Amino acid sequence: MVTIKDISDYLGIASSTVSKGLNNATDISDETRDKVIAAAIELGYSPKRRKHFTGLNGQFERKVCVFIENMDYENREQFGYDLIQGFKQSAEIRNWKVDIVPSNLNAQSKNEYDKFMITNGYSGAFMIGFSIHNDYSMQISKTRMPTVLFDNYVLNNPKVGYVGTDHYEGLKLAIHHLHSLGHTKIAFLNGARNTMVSSQQTQAFSTIMNELNLYVDPHLLESGYYVPDCAKYHVPKFIDRGATAIICASDLIASGAISEVQKRGLKVPEDISIIGFDDLPICQSITPQLTSIRQDRLSLGKSAMMLLDCLINNIPISKAILRADLIIRDSTAVVKNRD
Amino acid sequence: MVTIKDISDYLGIASSTVSKGLNNATDISDETRDKVIAAAIELGYSPKRRKHFTGLNGQFERKVCVFIENMDYENREQFGYDLIQGFKQSAEIRNWKVDIVPSNLNAQSKNEYDKFMITNGYSGAFMIGFSIHNDYSMQISKTRMPTVLFDNYVLNNPKVGYVGTDHYEGLKLAIHHLHSLGHTKIAFLNGARNTMVSSQQTQAFSTIMNELNLYVDPHLLESGYYVPDCAKYHVPKFIDRGATAIICASDLIASGAISEVQKRGLKVPEDISIIGFDDLPICQSITPQLTSIRQDRLSLGKSAMMLLDCLINNIPISKAILRADLIIRDSTAVVKNRD
Repeated sequence: MVTIKDISDYLGIASSTVSKGLNNATDISDETRDKVIAAAIELGYSPKRRKHFTGLNGQFERKVCVFIENMDYENREQFGYDLIQGFKQSAEIRNWKVDIVPSNLNAQSKNEYDKFMITNGYSGAFMIGFSIHNDYSMQISKTRMPTVLFDNYVLNNPKVGYVGTDHYEGLKLAIHHLHSLGHTKIAFLNGARNTMVSSQQTQAFSTIMNELNLYVDPHLLESGYYVPDCAKYHVPKFIDRGATAIICASDLIASGAISEVQKRGLKVPEDISIIGFDDLPICQSITPQLTSIRQDRLSLGKSAMMLLDCLINNIPISKAILRADLIIRDSTAVVKNRD
Repeated sequence: MVTIKDISDYLGIASSTVSKGLNNATDISDETRDKVIAAAIELGYSPKRRKHFTGLNGQFERKVCVFIENMDYENREQFGYDLIQGFKQSAEIRNWKVDIVPSNLNAQSKNEYDKFMITNGYSGAFMIGFSIHNDYSMQISKTRMPTVLFDNYVLNNPKVGYVGTDHYEGLKLAIHHLHSLGHTKIAFLNGARNTMVSSQQTQAFSTIMNELNLYVDPHLLESGYYVPDCAKYHVPKFIDRGATAIICASDLIASGAISEVQKRGLKVPEDISIIGFDDLPICQSITPQLTSIRQDRLSLGKSAMMLLDCLINNIPISKAILRADLIIRDSTAVVKNRD
């Protein structure tokens, strides 16, 4: 554990000056502050023991932050809402204060990640919605700041952990459900290409289909984007190819798939069964109500804070994986052979 | 969350009688007690809220237990010692009392797992050293008692979690280390056949070798047992086959492998490099000191308690995976071609 004294010894300056540098005090030069922060990053200092005396309640404060990108976390209908709620609930029990830091590519390039964390006194961070090629994400691979990623993983850095749902288990529940209803021609409409999660899902889909001796037709396996619109590019082909069921990588994609099936004069679930992913509130408001692979978003958020607490305390958990569940509603039914 | 009142309603008897049945009180009949416990198991009751007033310090007590099989956990040199220490340290912070329950197949068949847990007032358990075919392990697949398994996994039961080291990451570090020293003919002496961990390791070994374009010679890939003696059945063949490095699934197997190489008049690491697994204290006392893939046993124990706490609080984490590390000592060196 690197201390203020270590930085002080390393630079040959007083501990009080180091402390001022880390706390953005105004009575030292910019040059000295920059030197202190550069040394703090180099030595792997993290603000674990740095506590601010807060005048209001007379207690010491310790802070973590949540970086979010392109996410509406104040809307109950959206994926991020419960995730953040769970994180905050778990943080409160552990006496951590949480700041939400909306971020985007432009903002990221201005600040080095470690520098941002140290100068703002954050002991750790939870990152949601970042692609691994982003500037921040690249820095994460070598950071020494405790960091939890949602649905993303970096190798060999004991300061970074990954929290997510067991997609293999989720897809297994979905495919077995369809198989028990007699479906054999099952299509999978994945989300973005080339993310860790989408690669895992494509592989899991094929593995599980093989285990059940079901043919994985490459024409029934496509990637789009996590928006309803992507359904229109792929669902017509799936129908022409004889698919009787479509599993979608998100509930939004599934809602688009239902529209697309209906546009073709077919019915869900009588002609085609549809399964979504996430179990967002929307599942209960669309017609027919959507069968969906549930991600327990509140528990994911709680687990992220628990994992971050472990990383801050040097317990190097790299992955915390949560159970998936299948919520069966009205969009799946016994297969009807269409030809 | 099933309460005493739920059991009382279900059976149509007084809550006080249910409470007596769950607490082994002597002033009710054996028949009533059996009925209460059977109903508790059927409804999925777990003693989360059951607290005993302990006379000594006037505090309420909540209890978890650790089942161990065939393990010497009081010997600092052994794998189980730090695992249990870590678990206990983390339990203490969370105000859980820990009982250690040495178990064996014979003892297991006498008690149903859920019944044992309820009648002893345990809110959850950590299981170490059990094979998945044991009687207890079979019951685990459908238990409703929060249970953490070490290096074992069951599908689809949100009350059961798995804690272990990332064996893939560990083997990757080891193979890349040997590759950087010029080794291409690398043997892998695995532990027991057909356990979850050994299957994962064999698969990981092949995947990583393939990634480096190294040939996976089936004659250099064997399974034995987790004892030094198993080396003598396989190491001579590895040597005849031209292996220049051997990775072993435990430090004990590796110590046997070193003896076997030396018996053949060859030197470690000059002629053959050896890598162990676990990083037990023995690595530093054998000659040459053993390069080993480290399992952070203290952190594994702490993580097990953290995971158990999550399961007790209905946060369905199924896997908590810890980082592996490679501790390089004197048993690995630059390859020397022997022919």
